[in-house]
Amino acid sequence: MQQPPLRVLGIAGSLRTGSWNRKLLEAARRLAPADLSIEPVDLGEIPLYNADLDTPERRASSVEGLKESIRNADALLIATPEYNYGVPGVLKNAIDWASRPAGESPLAGKPVGIMGASPGALGAVRAQEHLKLVLLGTLAQVFPHPGVVVGNVRAKFDASGELVDEATRRFIAAYLVDFAAWVRRVGPPR
Amino acid sequence: MQQPPLRVLGIAGSLRTGSWNRKLLEAARRLAPADLSIEPVDLGEIPLYNADLDTPERRASSVEGLKESIRNADALLIATPEYNYGVPGVLKNAIDWASRPAGESPLAGKPVGIMGASPGALGAVRAQEHLKLVLLGTLAQVFPHPGVVVGNVRAKFDASGELVDEATRRFIAAYLVDFAAWVRRVGPPR
Repeated sequence: MQQPPLRVLGIAGSLRTGSWNRKLLEAARRLAPADLSIEPVDLGEIPLYNADLDTPERRASSVEGLKESIRNADALLIATPEYNYGVPGVLKNAIDWASRPAGESPLAGKPVGIMGASPGALGAVRAQEHLKLVLLGTLAQVFPHPGVVVGNVRAKFDASGELVDEATRRFIAAYLVDFAAWVRRVGPPR
Repeated sequence: MQQPPLRVLGIAGSLRTGSWNRKLLEAARRLAPADLSIEPVDLGEIPLYNADLDTPERRASSVEGLKESIRNADALLIATPEYNYGVPGVLKNAIDWASRPAGESPLAGKPVGIMGASPGALGAVRAQEHLKLVLLGTLAQVFPHPGVVVGNVRAKFDASGELVDEATRRFIAAYLVDFAAWVRRVGPPR
């Protein structure tokens, strides 16, 4: 019997329209196996975290929407750039909102895959490493797998923003097959 | 001849009104030696970082103000909480804005001291450690000194928000004397 496709929430850590990591996420969406669908979410309307506003009465609807999207997803796939050797504040801020209040976090137990792209050689790897620690801190489950570290993006995407580097395409396609199998294994019974 | 006091920009990594780290910064302001004054800045109006908006025409005035305050300060003193084992997104986002565009960052070369407070035992130490890496990534100068790691805040501040723990007060006062001497040594000629 065929299982329904996994619903994966795709999160890009950059708000820039031409973001390489948004393009990477779009490439992953197209390369995903048939049993995994990736739905991107936008972080542009999330306010700065303020515990005074983190109450049912005052919490922004964008935050409620993000938490609901995380809650309803079988897994997350995050494509992050690296800002100042770390996770972009934009992305960390969204994680901070999602992780609170304690005991009500939709991140707890959620399977998460991480990718990163950069114009330089390093593929946002320092941000990816720190993101693993942050996510484990939220009690999310981090996919243990050789990572999607996409450096030198200008040589790998074409002018229309499509990922054309064959080795990278194959790596991501294989990564997502493994990711889907892992999510089915470690996620809640479906 | 007496030197004019050092002007230190105080940054709290939390926006909450009752923030422990804001109280810690206020305690530092009162305990500072006569040759060092701490002026707090607020991050509440800083938008989410978006490179599309990081242009002279589109940059928010709050961001310009923050960068100008950093530029005019002799040093920064950051009091950060720990969110999810890391630097709060709010604080990281402000650093991301300040650090860009490349080559125009007021953080480059800026002397920075780090403190942290928490209700638990650890005094935001993981956030402090990661903040050091982030700041070094911006080419700021990080004060090499045993850190201000203030755990168990509820036993150290009184009901009015004043730091009353004598050992912590002495430590911070001594830290700030050392910080002032170091800033005069490593900062630009005044």
